[in-house]
Amino acid sequence: MTDFCRKYGLSIPVVLAPMGGGPSTPELVAAVSNAGGLGSLAAAYSNAERIEQDIAAVRKLTSRPFAVNLFSPQAQLPLNDDVKAVSEFLRPYHERLGLKAPELPQKPIEDFDEQLDAVAKAALPIVSFTFGLLPSKATERLKAQGTYLVGTATTVDEARQLEKAGVDAVIAQGSEAGAHRGTFAVPAEEALIGTVALVPQVVDAVHVPVIASGGIMDGRGLVAALALGASAVQMGTAFLACKEAGTSAAYREALMRGREDATTLTRAFSGRMARGLSNEFVEKWNAARMEHLPYPWQNAFTQPMRRAATAAKQVGLLSLWTGQGAGMLRETTVAQLMKDLQEEMKQAWLKLKGQME
Amino acid sequence: MTDFCRKYGLSIPVVLAPMGGGPSTPELVAAVSNAGGLGSLAAAYSNAERIEQDIAAVRKLTSRPFAVNLFSPQAQLPLNDDVKAVSEFLRPYHERLGLKAPELPQKPIEDFDEQLDAVAKAALPIVSFTFGLLPSKATERLKAQGTYLVGTATTVDEARQLEKAGVDAVIAQGSEAGAHRGTFAVPAEEALIGTVALVPQVVDAVHVPVIASGGIMDGRGLVAALALGASAVQMGTAFLACKEAGTSAAYREALMRGREDATTLTRAFSGRMARGLSNEFVEKWNAARMEHLPYPWQNAFTQPMRRAATAAKQVGLLSLWTGQGAGMLRETTVAQLMKDLQEEMKQAWLKLKGQME
Repeated sequence: MTDFCRKYGLSIPVVLAPMGGGPSTPELVAAVSNAGGLGSLAAAYSNAERIEQDIAAVRKLTSRPFAVNLFSPQAQLPLNDDVKAVSEFLRPYHERLGLKAPELPQKPIEDFDEQLDAVAKAALPIVSFTFGLLPSKATERLKAQGTYLVGTATTVDEARQLEKAGVDAVIAQGSEAGAHRGTFAVPAEEALIGTVALVPQVVDAVHVPVIASGGIMDGRGLVAALALGASAVQMGTAFLACKEAGTSAAYREALMRGREDATTLTRAFSGRMARGLSNEFVEKWNAARMEHLPYPWQNAFTQPMRRAATAAKQVGLLSLWTGQGAGMLRETTVAQLMKDLQEEMKQAWLKLKGQME
Repeated sequence: MTDFCRKYGLSIPVVLAPMGGGPSTPELVAAVSNAGGLGSLAAAYSNAERIEQDIAAVRKLTSRPFAVNLFSPQAQLPLNDDVKAVSEFLRPYHERLGLKAPELPQKPIEDFDEQLDAVAKAALPIVSFTFGLLPSKATERLKAQGTYLVGTATTVDEARQLEKAGVDAVIAQGSEAGAHRGTFAVPAEEALIGTVALVPQVVDAVHVPVIASGGIMDGRGLVAALALGASAVQMGTAFLACKEAGTSAAYREALMRGREDATTLTRAFSGRMARGLSNEFVEKWNAARMEHLPYPWQNAFTQPMRRAATAAKQVGLLSLWTGQGAGMLRETTVAQLMKDLQEEMKQAWLKLKGQME
């Protein structure tokens, strides 16, 4: 076991990726922690009240440690003429779904300071974050109460910046990863480094533990990540089809058709680059050569459509985040998946042992 | 040791990537084989006479097995009006280098059948290839003489196609890999799967041995690849700065400044997507939104510029192929590198053993 795993009593080096917008229910978070991994609650899209409720719900289901994940607050980029074009683009989809005309909300995202208050009040052992550095006041506050801080890097330089800012561990997010890229120091296009190349270079560059993320779906990948020098592996896609996940029925159905070469990177849904299965919305968006609004505006603007499409099972209009391990996805329960991962690790290890000794 | 390694008497699961256009000299190929790996001679840009000479040169330097690599013959796509635009684009660079005006050659690539004759005559134990399937006659001819055939896949489907076509092993080329993408069944943009996701999915899909490639630079990566189910690892970038490599002085200098996030994918040099360090030529090409000629025409058209730029150490006009492991590159000899890789494998293995047992 690695030091990181020992510290949190993990019997398997698995950290649940915080999957906002549905999948990471308190049930999923607790189930991963109960099965010997580290659950992560996705709090970035929640207001303070919701965060408190979710933390309480997880605590009802497990007495083991879990993390809460926030987005580093983003500079609010100014809106421009693209609003009208995006609104026009969304209109037919709103009509199809029986929604009123698209309207840009006043407040595209929850208030970070209120989220931080809720998280600090809960005195969680671990807080992870993505999309940048935390404001230094937030770092100080959380560290003062003994919270273990985990930042997300997609390049070596980002990992160094995070270490300098005081994080206790770094997630190295490889290009295979599903959903949002955590890139903050360069354009996201320049930070698509594969896990097998990124992890050892980050391990060599920082002194804190490195958690590998991106494309890892089974015990072979877990052993490989440890060999690369990682202290644990953050897995998201692998849990998407678990019974305990809040993944919608339409999303699940699409996922089961996923393949390694079926994902694409797009900013169409949120304004930030993210990896998911391509579908009607992404294809039409690309074909129209649309310019997205800056995050979080684009995210807020497309949210009513995505919500309604989820309810109506219109899979062509959903964000179908998934990583390049898509073809290895399993429909199962968390307990079974974790048991299988353990067994696969053992098998991969025994095979390796036969080759190495 | 894996079955593949045992078959060829490899003491370390390393296959040299065939690096055409300079780096893979007979000295480099022989040195890798002599150090317990499998050298690969890049024959795709050579005519029959040159292939015979190179094979003879390798055989003078080693009695151990090595592979020869060919490009699967490509459908000759028709040229169009882009020729004039590309010619205009190249003209100032030709002027800068003191070359006559750009001129499209009559014959953009060596004849495959003549190359195949030379390779078949040499009765090599292993022939690897990329850019597609071999013509079935070529497969039959080589297999009839007992040659072990290794094809290159960038997706699961390509691996399946290669197995069906009779290859004995598949190289799974992850998105991290430097130089040309081997993609042949989909647009190259859709086949940028990271090694950690691609390898296990290919291993699960085919029955033949899988050789991992892309982003692996040290012993940690070698152990990781074996854990993922690979039988060996093809490494190119790792050997670029070896004394025995034919890497030009200007190219070497640029490589030592390489970082994991400094590479880009471009078709500017050859018409096929390839990964390398960005430079003046790539940036200007992109800025001008140029349309490339189909491979191999673009490759042939830019060759005089690249050759002259190499001689003149004009690093801005060279193709600087390198993978995303760039930051882990070492200036050393093949013997030392292979010794270091062995030792690193052992260390990675011992660390893993401490974590797993």
